[in-house]
Amino acid sequence: MAEDPLVVFTPSGLRGRFPIGTPLLEAARSLGVDIDSVCGGRGLCGRCQVRPGFGEFAKHGIVSRAENISGANQVEARYDQKKGIAAGQRLSCQSRILGDLVIDVPAESQVHKQLVRKRAEARDIELDPAIRLHYIEVAEPDMHNPSGDLERVLAALEAQWGLTDLECDLRVLQMLQKVLREGGWKITAAVHRGQVLTTAWPGFHDRAYGVAVDVGSTTIAAHLCDLSSGAVVASAGAMNPQIRFGEDLMSRVSYVMMNPGGDREMTIVVREAIDQLIAEVAEEAGVAGQDILNATFVGNPVMHHLLLGIDPTELGGAPFALAANSGMTLWASELDLKQINPNARVYVLPCIAGHVGADAAGVILSESPHLSEEIMLVVDVGTNAEIILGNKDRLLACSSPTGPAFEGAQISGGQRAAPGAIERVRIDPQTLEPRFRVIGSELWSDQDGFAEATAKTGITGICGSGIIEVLAEMFLAGVLAADGTIDGAMADRSPRVQADGRTFSYLLYEGSPEIRITQNDVRAIQLAKAALYAGAQLLMDRLGVERVDRIVLAGAFGSHIDVTYAMVLGLIPDCDLAKVGSAGNAAGTGARIALLNQRARDEIERVITRVEKIETAVEPRFQEHFVAAMGIPHSTASFPSLAGVVTLPEPKAPNAGKAGNDNRRRRRRRAGA
Amino acid sequence: MAEDPLVVFTPSGLRGRFPIGTPLLEAARSLGVDIDSVCGGRGLCGRCQVRPGFGEFAKHGIVSRAENISGANQVEARYDQKKGIAAGQRLSCQSRILGDLVIDVPAESQVHKQLVRKRAEARDIELDPAIRLHYIEVAEPDMHNPSGDLERVLAALEAQWGLTDLECDLRVLQMLQKVLREGGWKITAAVHRGQVLTTAWPGFHDRAYGVAVDVGSTTIAAHLCDLSSGAVVASAGAMNPQIRFGEDLMSRVSYVMMNPGGDREMTIVVREAIDQLIAEVAEEAGVAGQDILNATFVGNPVMHHLLLGIDPTELGGAPFALAANSGMTLWASELDLKQINPNARVYVLPCIAGHVGADAAGVILSESPHLSEEIMLVVDVGTNAEIILGNKDRLLACSSPTGPAFEGAQISGGQRAAPGAIERVRIDPQTLEPRFRVIGSELWSDQDGFAEATAKTGITGICGSGIIEVLAEMFLAGVLAADGTIDGAMADRSPRVQADGRTFSYLLYEGSPEIRITQNDVRAIQLAKAALYAGAQLLMDRLGVERVDRIVLAGAFGSHIDVTYAMVLGLIPDCDLAKVGSAGNAAGTGARIALLNQRARDEIERVITRVEKIETAVEPRFQEHFVAAMGIPHSTASFPSLAGVVTLPEPKAPNAGKAGNDNRRRRRRRAGA
Repeated sequence: MAEDPLVVFTPSGLRGRFPIGTPLLEAARSLGVDIDSVCGGRGLCGRCQVRPGFGEFAKHGIVSRAENISGANQVEARYDQKKGIAAGQRLSCQSRILGDLVIDVPAESQVHKQLVRKRAEARDIELDPAIRLHYIEVAEPDMHNPSGDLERVLAALEAQWGLTDLECDLRVLQMLQKVLREGGWKITAAVHRGQVLTTAWPGFHDRAYGVAVDVGSTTIAAHLCDLSSGAVVASAGAMNPQIRFGEDLMSRVSYVMMNPGGDREMTIVVREAIDQLIAEVAEEAGVAGQDILNATFVGNPVMHHLLLGIDPTELGGAPFALAANSGMTLWASELDLKQINPNARVYVLPCIAGHVGADAAGVILSESPHLSEEIMLVVDVGTNAEIILGNKDRLLACSSPTGPAFEGAQISGGQRAAPGAIERVRIDPQTLEPRFRVIGSELWSDQDGFAEATAKTGITGICGSGIIEVLAEMFLAGVLAADGTIDGAMADRSPRVQADGRTFSYLLYEGSPEIRITQNDVRAIQLAKAALYAGAQLLMDRLGVERVDRIVLAGAFGSHIDVTYAMVLGLIPDCDLAKVGSAGNAAGTGARIALLNQRARDEIERVITRVEKIETAVEPRFQEHFVAAMGIPHSTASFPSLAGVVTLPEPKAPNAGKAGNDNRRRRRRRAGA
Repeated sequence: MAEDPLVVFTPSGLRGRFPIGTPLLEAARSLGVDIDSVCGGRGLCGRCQVRPGFGEFAKHGIVSRAENISGANQVEARYDQKKGIAAGQRLSCQSRILGDLVIDVPAESQVHKQLVRKRAEARDIELDPAIRLHYIEVAEPDMHNPSGDLERVLAALEAQWGLTDLECDLRVLQMLQKVLREGGWKITAAVHRGQVLTTAWPGFHDRAYGVAVDVGSTTIAAHLCDLSSGAVVASAGAMNPQIRFGEDLMSRVSYVMMNPGGDREMTIVVREAIDQLIAEVAEEAGVAGQDILNATFVGNPVMHHLLLGIDPTELGGAPFALAANSGMTLWASELDLKQINPNARVYVLPCIAGHVGADAAGVILSESPHLSEEIMLVVDVGTNAEIILGNKDRLLACSSPTGPAFEGAQISGGQRAAPGAIERVRIDPQTLEPRFRVIGSELWSDQDGFAEATAKTGITGICGSGIIEVLAEMFLAGVLAADGTIDGAMADRSPRVQADGRTFSYLLYEGSPEIRITQNDVRAIQLAKAALYAGAQLLMDRLGVERVDRIVLAGAFGSHIDVTYAMVLGLIPDCDLAKVGSAGNAAGTGARIALLNQRARDEIERVITRVEKIETAVEPRFQEHFVAAMGIPHSTASFPSLAGVVTLPEPKAPNAGKAGNDNRRRRRRRAGA
């Protein structure tokens, strides 16, 4: 007897012999080849398309001939007619093996396809959504052998998809009989993590979406994703309406303390805002809310608790006890979400500590310091900076109270990053004259056409990245001393340095509104950057490292600042500038990863249990570092990476060094004491 | 070194040696002695009381001396002072072993105590509630080692009670932080089936109740039970308000078919009625709704579906498909129950088939035919009779459409069993004069004082058991022929037999209202009893038995009828009359068993999968049996158990036998054909 035909699947290289007539999909599955299907081989979904290769494949030792695969049958022809099959591709469920074959499974036919991320250093996302759709044919009820419709659905899911011991919620049971009859005993079931039957549609249904939501104190961002491709089909942001109860986290917690039931109010408004935002992204993408079957959430601990309807009072004071530090899987209805399928499952990422939230968990998922060989410092800058330091061996986290200065709040001319805000600044070290750029225009203020380019938005203020640049430029130009004092002596050299009561200010823009940098502005930024630097330094102490290999700045602020200026001001510790980068909204990306890959949820829950949490509020060394970091580094001794990049001014006062954050020297002194 | 002291626990006989100073509770637990505790050995709950025996116990080879057990310590003295410890008893958690001891664990200190049932033939209920209370001391939050409050609660439950992998619902999480702080990190947690943390109280809490509910088409009954003792502390019944949508099941299903959304209306009203009933029993027993932590439900398939908010339309026609045939565990909130703890767990017993509901499942749990060596016939008579036949080897079930005649409906003078209803009847075979008793009085109508005794209620009608007796007595007196005709010839012998149009009637009571038995009444009962008998006969055919060993009549009707008369009329097949008994509301008892013993839930789910379900509507032989069973047996040939108990009249017409349900003969004839 001749041997059965040999079939090799690429790119996996999995191979096996199969009797003539075996459908390719069946062969692929028996070998464990990663190949998608919603309809279970009935030629309805088109997900299982493969590309047979013909010719002699020396590498595989096979001659794969066109006649070794069956021609398109009626089912395949009908699918091709209705929805189209790309030239050279075949439905693997309808194609039968007639001889030796080499079959390529294109990426789009793989369940676990890799989603390549834009940033080279970020790891790819492997698509593996928690929600899977399964088309099934269900046995009809039989009076002579009565059983429940549900039990026959579960039997079909077991027989046709190998899914066992599924749970089913009452809501699904309430709809199931109707769906079965409308579908003529053919339905599509949505199953969550292979464990819970969450919803069902009559007949064949292949639309499944998910939404990843980052609930920030100020902004809520939502990304709607197609769970079959992993693509983001729409994104949107909205203000967090809780702002009316308090600008920052502590004022919202205070609101709850002062107003019994205040937590409930804030829970209601944030859920409504999320719901509204989901409706917006769904409409933008033309996706029915009923097809949104999964959602993931990140947020800082207070946002996390208020989203879940948990009173955040305990987070307002030591010991900052979280209600729970595990990830939570819920029903959409438990969060009162109405714009997605009521049977959607929701996953809320775990918080790490009372000040290090599910947003930090998202940042870890996105930036993967827990997998890194290098020592990574990941900083998510918001009203609090959440700081993560470490590598695959050890991971530390803390939160540092930077306050809102980096976001333009508490700054005289400050504003949020929006069109009209000054975002880039250069100061001529000779004349002390500034030039700048505003968001919305690529032109510098001294270039032709600038006035026209900015006429529409006006010049309305200065945003976080602009403040960093103007201060760094003031320092490099000698206007700002290492201790943060605006040097009144410079008023002699430029009219832009002006007396302002007992202190001085620098006039950045003389239009209307006038934008100037006051001594108070400098102090606010000094406090913020000292907190940030001190938090990072505290973790470095704990980890026992003097230097980090890579720095990732996350969050809106982190995405816009020029890292050189950040280092000049001493926001971040020294690091090869080529290895300092921005990650954008890494927390939101983490939510998206958890949405698209169910195992990422298990991964982050495991990782956070081994994160060492440092509470800055009770660490005496944090105060020391904080005080030491108030000044601006006056030499490249502690920032060798700046050498050759910028020229730091000479120290002006004999004791300026004391206020600088030349931390390496300080630490050495302590170590030697 | 001397051997450690020997301790023998009775009644279990478990024994072991323990170091001097070991607390008795600890010793008992290490041996697996069944001993209760809510507080985990802290001397708070008093559940672990034992009775040390002193003297020489030859049987155990021990001399147990008073000095071999430590005296009462402060904790025990305080408990004794506050709540009292019975003379001779000790708190086992506070008493330490000082030498050899014989320790008796009284029934009330056992977790799995046996609850003895009144009926000798019913198996005892072993107390093993699904909800257990566990007092725990929880670690306080620590900034330096942050973890969620929930995770520390779970850690305490694992360390102090060995409970692992508990789930926790969002509602519990929402309340947990407050409870922990109110209780000073000492709380009592309620755990469902060792799997789900359902609620918590600050400090020590030892009140846990459950409610078993039988949702009948006409009546809802609720039994409130103390989960620590198993005692029923209050019971109450109420009309099912769904009656306004239709008297019987099919008219309610029709209402849904005619009125879209009608199922929702009926779901709402029945849930409200249940809630109200629970409030009543709780108030009667002085139990706080918050302490009701578990509920179980039985009901026929339509009641089951409407309770769960499932459209019952499919149950209204072939193939009578159930939405599900598994038991369901839910949250009280999913059934909108507000009068019990919102975190209470609810268990709804499984339905068996489209016509054999969770009430029949309850009947099986109560009467245990699945454990019986004897062939048992269990009949729950309502508007439908649910019939179960079999033994430990094989179990069959069907439902037979008896209609409401047995409950007094569709009978000219019929009424529900209530004070004033005639329930017992005797007819003098010579004079044909009746005497009777009415509910509410022990006197017969021909006894002195009867008029006075019934003056208050009056004589208002005849209930189901009265109808059975009057028809059987009419038959025995020759007024009723075997084919069910009221014999007009008897009008010559008694004025009570009266022409009534083209037929005759029998005047039972000549007062106001006049109560007479019409030919239509006889026909209604004939239809009902033929359905009942035919259902039983169908199951006997299928099981291949000609006789049953034991008959149990369940339900209100089954509890009141005289089984001899039931057999005279041919409602039930032949059986030794000593082995025919009533079980009362067996479905409700089944709900109570499932409430008090969690394993009974698993048991019934296993049992119903092996029940063979017979659909009478599509069994041709059912019709044959039904027609054959319309008449009244005219001889003891098929009912040998009646021989010597009653004297059956001679057949009057030469062909009367054809209409009789001498089924044994008929079956033999068929078998020989």
